[in-house]
Amino acid sequence: MPERLAVVGGDAAGMSAAAVARRRDPDLEILAFERGPYTSYSACGIPYYLAGDIENVDSLIARSPEEFRESGIDVRMLTEVVGIDLDRRVLTVRDLDARTEYEEGFDRLVYATGAEAIPPPIEGADAVGSVLKVDAAERFRAEVSHHPGTNAVVIGASYLGLEMAEALVKRGLDVVLVDQADQVMTTLDPDMASHIKHAAEGVGIRVLLSTTVEEVVTGEDGRPQMVRTAEEGDLKADHVVLSTGVRPVVGLAEEAGLELGESGAVRTDDHQRCSGADGVFAAGDCAESRHRLTGRGVNIQLGTHANKQGKVAGINATGGDVAFPGVIGTAVSRICKYEVARTGLSERQAAEAGIDVVSATIKDRTRAGYYPGAGPIWVKLVVAPDNARILGGQIVGEEGAAKRIDVLATSIWTGMSANEFEDLDLSYAPPFSGVYDPLLRAAHQAVKAAEKAG
Amino acid sequence: MPERLAVVGGDAAGMSAAAVARRRDPDLEILAFERGPYTSYSACGIPYYLAGDIENVDSLIARSPEEFRESGIDVRMLTEVVGIDLDRRVLTVRDLDARTEYEEGFDRLVYATGAEAIPPPIEGADAVGSVLKVDAAERFRAEVSHHPGTNAVVIGASYLGLEMAEALVKRGLDVVLVDQADQVMTTLDPDMASHIKHAAEGVGIRVLLSTTVEEVVTGEDGRPQMVRTAEEGDLKADHVVLSTGVRPVVGLAEEAGLELGESGAVRTDDHQRCSGADGVFAAGDCAESRHRLTGRGVNIQLGTHANKQGKVAGINATGGDVAFPGVIGTAVSRICKYEVARTGLSERQAAEAGIDVVSATIKDRTRAGYYPGAGPIWVKLVVAPDNARILGGQIVGEEGAAKRIDVLATSIWTGMSANEFEDLDLSYAPPFSGVYDPLLRAAHQAVKAAEKAG
Repeated sequence: MPERLAVVGGDAAGMSAAAVARRRDPDLEILAFERGPYTSYSACGIPYYLAGDIENVDSLIARSPEEFRESGIDVRMLTEVVGIDLDRRVLTVRDLDARTEYEEGFDRLVYATGAEAIPPPIEGADAVGSVLKVDAAERFRAEVSHHPGTNAVVIGASYLGLEMAEALVKRGLDVVLVDQADQVMTTLDPDMASHIKHAAEGVGIRVLLSTTVEEVVTGEDGRPQMVRTAEEGDLKADHVVLSTGVRPVVGLAEEAGLELGESGAVRTDDHQRCSGADGVFAAGDCAESRHRLTGRGVNIQLGTHANKQGKVAGINATGGDVAFPGVIGTAVSRICKYEVARTGLSERQAAEAGIDVVSATIKDRTRAGYYPGAGPIWVKLVVAPDNARILGGQIVGEEGAAKRIDVLATSIWTGMSANEFEDLDLSYAPPFSGVYDPLLRAAHQAVKAAEKAG
Repeated sequence: MPERLAVVGGDAAGMSAAAVARRRDPDLEILAFERGPYTSYSACGIPYYLAGDIENVDSLIARSPEEFRESGIDVRMLTEVVGIDLDRRVLTVRDLDARTEYEEGFDRLVYATGAEAIPPPIEGADAVGSVLKVDAAERFRAEVSHHPGTNAVVIGASYLGLEMAEALVKRGLDVVLVDQADQVMTTLDPDMASHIKHAAEGVGIRVLLSTTVEEVVTGEDGRPQMVRTAEEGDLKADHVVLSTGVRPVVGLAEEAGLELGESGAVRTDDHQRCSGADGVFAAGDCAESRHRLTGRGVNIQLGTHANKQGKVAGINATGGDVAFPGVIGTAVSRICKYEVARTGLSERQAAEAGIDVVSATIKDRTRAGYYPGAGPIWVKLVVAPDNARILGGQIVGEEGAAKRIDVLATSIWTGMSANEFEDLDLSYAPPFSGVYDPLLRAAHQAVKAAEKAG
């Protein structure tokens, strides 16, 4: 009888694991269970779908269940794994359509249940859904079409909340974005985040910070009417979007006895192996990653990590020996007129980790001053005061600004100092920068900041 | 009596040296001689000026002679240094306006004469100028305005020739671009260069490769009429632009007894010191740089290197001790609809240097497939067959493609292998790439290519 690999969760991580396992071991029996109606979709694309930039939701689906089945993976949709018995090596599975339960055995397991929205402690919030999943986004888009209204409130000013707010502005709504924190995008330091706030206000979003939502007030039809805040009173709300954070889906793993890490996600070693459970792997948004700068366990929901970790799990589940190298928190997004990116540690994160840093920020132009279309770019570097080692970077700016973050990510990865960075032979032409790239100018200032502090 | 620093050549390298020397040593007497009418201008901006993207030539001038004079640098314009006596420490200087010659002593010297167009061995070519300098570009733009004509021929399909050809198309001319080589942009390998040729043809440029220009035929008014080629017959030419390469201006240095390097440019050590001549430095387009991958002396004309080397010369000429770290040949440009970039060694350069390499090329999209505006991007990686160390990269693609070259430049600089590169935590969001950045996909293919070869 062939060995059997079971995959719990049919999104990026799970299906990457399944696909690579399929290629490596043609004899392996592979079962994948997905409680939703879609496999392998791009959650990152949902705001663009809501905005109408993308018309067809199918274009967000990287690979359909049928395609996986054709390659010999038994994908069961609308099927939820409700129990994992690690001793008996048996899953309890619920067919959500037929409302039946059955058991399936496994030899090896990849746990890839993803993340879910954290229900906020707000009265009435259960009346509005999150739009983290494709099916929820479809429902919300239909709702906006059927009940156009004029006012929308987005609760939570993370990059996702900002993207959602922008999407609703594009659909013609008056949008208020509310957050308890005193800045948008807490993955950035406040000085850099303030540029994003201005950009959001520039497209017409009303941004209310340090504002606590107390209640989502719904009408008799169960639809939202207003959002009640402590500081700003009542906000009219024909539509409400929750963007108050996500958490790894770990309930099933906990019940099965799999260990969780300090981030609350499933703990794994660098081979994505769960501790103390032979042949059991975890990958993607539900799993913990090691942050290379702090050594701590972190839980960063990102498609790239999910794909890479899924691949690592799939390889190691089929006799391979590869490691996931950890993360440094690189991220990029486009928000209103700005591109935004970050990598490594922010000043705040460094302080939280007890790491002493100094920083330098420069403002420059995205093209040579005389070249048409030159726009602002801000670059912030966070470095160690003693040796100017680069520990973090943040970039905000117009078209062409943000993918520079990958240069900083590479320099952080290799342990480069700002002094060494200044030596780099980076490209120059007037359509892309002044004669010194903004990164070189930021490195120069960071060297000075470290000299002053050291 | 104060010490005196003389600077020969008032463009990027020379004036960077002068400016940094001024800041470091307020007592130093600083003289700078420039034979042309402009200091510190952006030669890279000239094609955009010709195209009309930039209306005013003054915007190409980073800093005027007056500004330098206000900071206490005695800048003498239209003044050519015609002799350097290293024993007597005396320059012979010609005032081009007054047609007089005089002598000026110096204690320390920065030689920064720049580069000049190589006159091609083409009959009649002396009737047409190059447009490398701002004043020549002004004359040419005036000429195109006064004698609009309909046909232009650009001789030489380097990136500069391509930019000039595109500029003339924008001015409404029918443009033929001719080159002896069998590809455009020989800084790229032929496979990557072919995309640029297609893009040039796409905007209406007729590209004639493997075509030898025999004569520029001029009329009685001395203006060009046609360009005679061996393979393609006569090409109508109301305007002719020469773009047949540049060379370092070294005549004066040679006469003074300064040593030249293997590239034909002035040889310096990593402190920009000329060999055997105490207190004499060279910097910028006239000076040789060390290529970090081959160890060879190279002469790469680029504003960034000129600025950096000038700064190094200025610091060391005022008692400092800093090194220019060498180059790896990073370059970027925007040509027709594509961004184009390269760094490190091309396959051809590796072969010329006797370095064994393998390569991998991927085609991808500049954004997630479903995201509006996704365009093509090609990435080529050149790696060592034994350990997959990254030795070179080339990128061609639409908006957002090319500045990725800096990530490759950084990885080459630090000696990273393609395997290590695959581990990098690079940024991802749908407006910027698919879930695996094109660079990661290229690295993956390069690993495979090295495994196959190794």
